Amino acid sequence: MAKAKTSGERLARGRKKLRQIHGPGGEAVIAGLGEIAPDLARYIVEFAFGDIYCRGGLTLKERQIATVAGLVALGHSQPQLRSHIHGALNVGCSRKEILEIVIQMALYAGFPAASNAANSAQMVFRERDSRGIKG
Amino acid sequence: MAKAKTSGERLARGRKKLRQIHGPGGEAVIAGLGEIAPDLARYIVEFAFGDIYCRGGLTLKERQIATVAGLVALGHSQPQLRSHIHGALNVGCSRKEILEIVIQMALYAGFPAASNAANSAQMVFRERDSRGIKG
Amino acid sequence: MAKAKTSGERLARGRKKLRQIHGPGGEAVIAGLGEIAPDLARYIVEFAFGDIYCRGGLTLKERQIATVAGLVALGHSQPQLRSHIHGALNVGCSRKEILEIVIQMALYAGFPAASNAANSAQMVFRERDSRGIKG
Amino acid sequence: MAKAKTSGERLARGRKKLRQIHGPGGEAVIAGLGEIAPDLARYIVEFAFGDIYCRGGLTLKERQIATVAGLVALGHSQPQLRSHIHGALNVGCSRKEILEIVIQMALYAGFPAASNAANSAQMVFRERDSRGIKG
Amino acid sequence: MAKAKTSGERLARGRKKLRQIHGPGGEAVIAGLGEIAPDLARYIVEFAFGDIYCRGGLTLKERQIATVAGLVALGHSQPQLRSHIHGALNVGCSRKEILEIVIQMALYAGFPAASNAANSAQMVFRERDSRGIKG
Amino acid sequence: MAKAKTSGERLARGRKKLRQIHGPGGEAVIAGLGEIAPDLARYIVEFAFGDIYCRGGLTLKERQIATVAGLVALGHSQPQLRSHIHGALNVGCSRKEILEIVIQMALYAGFPAASNAANSAQMVFRERDSRGIKG
Repeated sequence: MAKAKTSGERLARGRKKLRQIHGPGGEAVIAGLGEIAPDLARYIVEFAFGDIYCRGGLTLKERQIATVAGLVALGHSQPQLRSHIHGALNVGCSRKEILEIVIQMALYAGFPAASNAANSAQMVFRERDSRGIKG
Repeated sequence: MAKAKTSGERLARGRKKLRQIHGPGGEAVIAGLGEIAPDLARYIVEFAFGDIYCRGGLTLKERQIATVAGLVALGHSQPQLRSHIHGALNVGCSRKEILEIVIQMALYAGFPAASNAANSAQMVFRERDSRGIKG
Repeated sequence: MAKAKTSGERLARGRKKLRQIHGPGGEAVIAGLGEIAPDLARYIVEFAFGDIYCRGGLTLKERQIATVAGLVALGHSQPQLRSHIHGALNVGCSRKEILEIVIQMALYAGFPAASNAANSAQMVFRERDSRGIKG
Repeated sequence: MAKAKTSGERLARGRKKLRQIHGPGGEAVIAGLGEIAPDLARYIVEFAFGDIYCRGGLTLKERQIATVAGLVALGHSQPQLRSHIHGALNVGCSRKEILEIVIQMALYAGFPAASNAANSAQMVFRERDSRGIKG
Repeated sequence: MAKAKTSGERLARGRKKLRQIHGPGGEAVIAGLGEIAPDLARYIVEFAFGDIYCRGGLTLKERQIATVAGLVALGHSQPQLRSHIHGALNVGCSRKEILEIVIQMALYAGFPAASNAANSAQMVFRERDSRGIKG
Repeated sequence: MAKAKTSGERLARGRKKLRQIHGPGGEAVIAGLGEIAPDLARYIVEFAFGDIYCRGGLTLKERQIATVAGLVALGHSQPQLRSHIHGALNVGCSRKEILEIVIQMALYAGFPAASNAANSAQMVFRERDSRGIKG
C-alpha cells in the first residue's frame, strides 16, 4: 500500500474506492450521515475506504466476501449489510455467491441471522432488477 | 451439489471435507466433542461439513474467508476461529490474507475483536512453524 | 431418535414438525424464504425441523422455552422471536409463561432486550386475539 | 445510597428519577410496556431507576454517558438508545457530546453500530427541535 | 408473587433461592464477587434471585432451561453458563436435557456457541462425577 | 480538532495520547500486536489514539467512561476491558466510578457481563496495588 501523506489524499483515495464499490449511492449515504456526524462520515471515507479498503493482500472481491460475512454474523446492521451486498455485486461477486456466504454463516451465527440476511439480499436483488442493473 | 441420499453418505462426505480443510486435527476435535455430545458432533460432520461445506457456489478458499470473517465478527469463539484459520491456510489462504480479513473486520466489529483475532492468528502461525507446516 | 434415511424423509418429517409448531403460517414463511434462498429454506425444514426439532430429550414445550429464551438473548432477530412465540403458544406454553421467559432474560441480556421481546410478545398476542386463536 | 425500605418507596424514588431523566415521555413508555408486561415495567422503575440510577458514585451525566455508550455497543436496541440519548441531553449532555460518544464507540463496536447510532441521534435531535426543546 | 416488603426480606428470600438452585457453591461465588463489588453481589441476590427467580409462572426447571439457553446464545459468559448448568441439574434437569438445550441453540446462535457450551457442560458433568453428585 | 496532516504526525500524536492513557504498558501491548499485525497496530495508534482519542467534545475521563461501558456491554473482550480500566484510572476515574459503570451496564448487557467486568476490575485493582499505583 502506498501511504497517503495527508488527510486530503486519503479522502480523495477513499472517495474513489467508495465509488468503485458502492457507486453514486454510496456517496449519498455518506452525505446523509455527514449531515448529522460529519467527522464520522469523514472517518468512514478517509479511514475505512481510504486506508483499509485500499490495502492489498485481498482482492476487492475477497474483501467484500469478508465484509458481507462479518455483517451477517453481527446480525444487527441490516442497512449496512444491504449496502455491502450491493458493493460485493458491484465488484464481481455473483448473486449465487452472496447467498452461499449467507448459508455458510448459518453455521456460525445461526439460522435467524442467515434468514434475515437472505431477506436483505432479496431486497438488494429486486432493487437491482428494478433499476436494470446486471449482477 | 449432488444430494447425499442417506445419513451414512452425508457423514462420509463430511468426514472427507473435514479432513480436506482441517486435516487429522479436525477429526480429533470432533472426536473430543463426540465424547460429551455425540449427536452435536455428528451434526457438525453431517450437516456443517457434509451438506454446507460440500456446496458449490464459492471456492473452498472463499468459503473459509467468509467463515474466518464471521468468527472474527462474533468475537466470542476464539478456539473455533483458530481452527478455521488453520483450515483457511490449509485450503490456500496465505497468512497475509488471514491478517487482511482480521483488519477488514476491525471496521465492522471493532478493534478489540480484531486484536484478539490477530493474537489467535499468531498462535496458529507459531504452531504451524513449530510443526514445520508451510503456509 | 429414529434416523431418517434420506433427504426426502427428513423433509417430510421436518414439514410435519413445522406444521405442528408453527401451523400453516410457518410453511408460508419458509416458502417466502425459498423464493430467494431455496437451499437455506430446505436446510431449515430438513435440518432444523426434521433433525433437531424431532429429537427427544426435551418435550416440545421445553424446546420452545429454550428457543424463545435464546432469541430474546440474541436480541437481533425479532421476526424469528415472534414466530417462535407463536410456536411456543401453539405447543402448550401460556402467554404468562412467555412473559416469564422474557423477564428471566432481563437478567442475562439486559432490560432493552427484554423490553423489545415484550413488545414482540404483545404483537403476537394481539394477532392471535384478532384471529380468534386461543392461547 | 440510602436504601429504600419497601417496594413502594423504591417505586416512588424510581418514578421521580425516571421523570428527571426522561421527562413525561419516559412514563408513557413504561406505561405502554406495563400493558403487556406489568412486572417488567415495575422492575424497570423499581430496580433500574429506583435502585441503580439512584446510586451515587457517578454524576447523572456520567451515568448517561455510560448508558448511551453501552447501548451503541450492543447495537440491537435502537429505541432504547434513542430514549437514553433524550435522557442524556435532559441531564446535561450536549448534542456534541452524544456524537463524540457515538464516534468513540466506532472503535469498539465498529462503524455500522456507530452509523446506526448517529442516525438515532439525528432522529432525537430533530424531534427536540420540532418540539422546541433546548439541548 | 408475594411482594417482599423490605430489602432484608428480599435478600433472605434470594439467599434461600440461591441455595436451592446453586447449593453452597453459589453463595461462595456471590461472596467472591462481593469482595470487589458488594452492591452488585447484593443486587444479584436481592433482585435476580430474590425477585426474578422467586416469581411463579414457570417451574424452576423451566426457568433454568430458559437461563441455560440464553447463556448459550450470548456465548460470552462461560463461567455463568457452567454455574447455571449446575443449577439446572440441581433443580431437576437431566444431563441429557442440558445437552438438548445446547443442541437446540446451535440453530439460533451457531455451532461454535453450541460447541463451547457442550465443553462447559462436560466440565460440569465431570466435576459432579468427581464429587459424587447424582444428576 | 487540529487535523494532523501526515501519517507521521498522526502516529506521533497517537503515541503521546496512548502514553497519557495507558502509560508504558500500552506501548508494550501495541508492540506485541505489532509483531503479528504491524498495520493493525499502526491503525490503532494512528486512527484510534491519534484521531479519535485526540478529539475534543468529551473530557478524557468522559471518553474513558464511554469506552469502559462499551467494552462491558460487548462482553467478549476482557483483555481490552482491563486495559481501558487501567486507562480510565490513569486519567482521573476512581475505582468506585469504575464499579458504578459496571453496575450500570448490568441493566443493559445483563448480570453475567457485569460480573465478569467486576472480576476484570478486581484484577486491575490488585495489579495496581501490587505495583504501588495510586488510584
